[in-house]
Amino acid sequence: MSSSAPWKQLLLNSINSNSHLKHSTYFQLATVRSNGRPSNRTVVFRGFQDGTDKIQINSDSRSCKIEDLKHCPFAEVCWYFTETWEQFRIHGRVDLIDASNSDPYKLEQREAAWFAGSVRSRLQYLGPTPGLPSLDEQPSHDSLDSSAGPVDVFCLLLLDPEQVDYLNLKSNERLAFTTARSVNAYEYIKVK
Amino acid sequence: MSSSAPWKQLLLNSINSNSHLKHSTYFQLATVRSNGRPSNRTVVFRGFQDGTDKIQINSDSRSCKIEDLKHCPFAEVCWYFTETWEQFRIHGRVDLIDASNSDPYKLEQREAAWFAGSVRSRLQYLGPTPGLPSLDEQPSHDSLDSSAGPVDVFCLLLLDPEQVDYLNLKSNERLAFTTARSVNAYEYIKVK
Repeated sequence: MSSSAPWKQLLLNSINSNSHLKHSTYFQLATVRSNGRPSNRTVVFRGFQDGTDKIQINSDSRSCKIEDLKHCPFAEVCWYFTETWEQFRIHGRVDLIDASNSDPYKLEQREAAWFAGSVRSRLQYLGPTPGLPSLDEQPSHDSLDSSAGPVDVFCLLLLDPEQVDYLNLKSNERLAFTTARSVNAYEYIKVK
Repeated sequence: MSSSAPWKQLLLNSINSNSHLKHSTYFQLATVRSNGRPSNRTVVFRGFQDGTDKIQINSDSRSCKIEDLKHCPFAEVCWYFTETWEQFRIHGRVDLIDASNSDPYKLEQREAAWFAGSVRSRLQYLGPTPGLPSLDEQPSHDSLDSSAGPVDVFCLLLLDPEQVDYLNLKSNERLAFTTARSVNAYEYIKVK
């Protein structure tokens, strides 16, 4: 039985249609700072958590977004696909899985996310300050044992979508999806 | 004397270098909802206000971002340039200029913003509900007198940058700019 959310296939199609563009896996993640003001930055889509609709993002626990998420655990993704003129706004709660997590299953997921990235991309977590956002595989002269597990500052973010708003600017179609968690189902609302 | 902020020329250069791409004038605008959660959507850069560093965005007063901004008047732009691999994060207060504004000068600016858009782009403000985001010039069968002034729901947003964070993923350069309003000057911090 597939329990996949109805918006997920739409998103997978968009990812596929735009995959020839390097930036197609980049999206903007909005959070709320501890002073109540918004913040926004580009991050990289690291796939869905196996068997779920949760979106994976890698982060450095020293980056500002971690502080934001500790204050307010909600985020909104805005993902615009430049080839197909489609926008996904994905709102949900973020589970922050860092080295101090007490759940062995979550720590396993964090380790899997670490090894899913290239050795080069792992190097950014080794410096004295958070590295430049890992939008790209930056060249580096540092070296790292490829079998070494995640460093302490490596953090896996899991965004669990509650609301998804889809917009297609070619067809002028708009769709809104809202999870109804209590019945483990999705309410589907066609807006336009 | 030029009073332009030091980040402005950097941004103008990026806009120019990416101008062959239709989506180069699109950026993501994060705001905070009245329930304290973030929201995020793609909007269109409508230029700088004449003689200032303020960023212009057009909006429909019935859209959710207006409600957000009435609750929390701060926003953060995340603008990623896909050709040159540059990101600008621009944080600041947003001045919301709608039909009810009592300042004649601001109403003039709102009118100028209305006429700066194409007749077709103005049509989206005429429907019974907010139109699809005006990322594109959507075809429509409605008509509008091209000399008619702004409709009531047309709203001009002016974002006044306080913090600008620049990232260049080709050169691995990062620059942070913070306004120091009290002395009408910019503090320039080279982070990396």
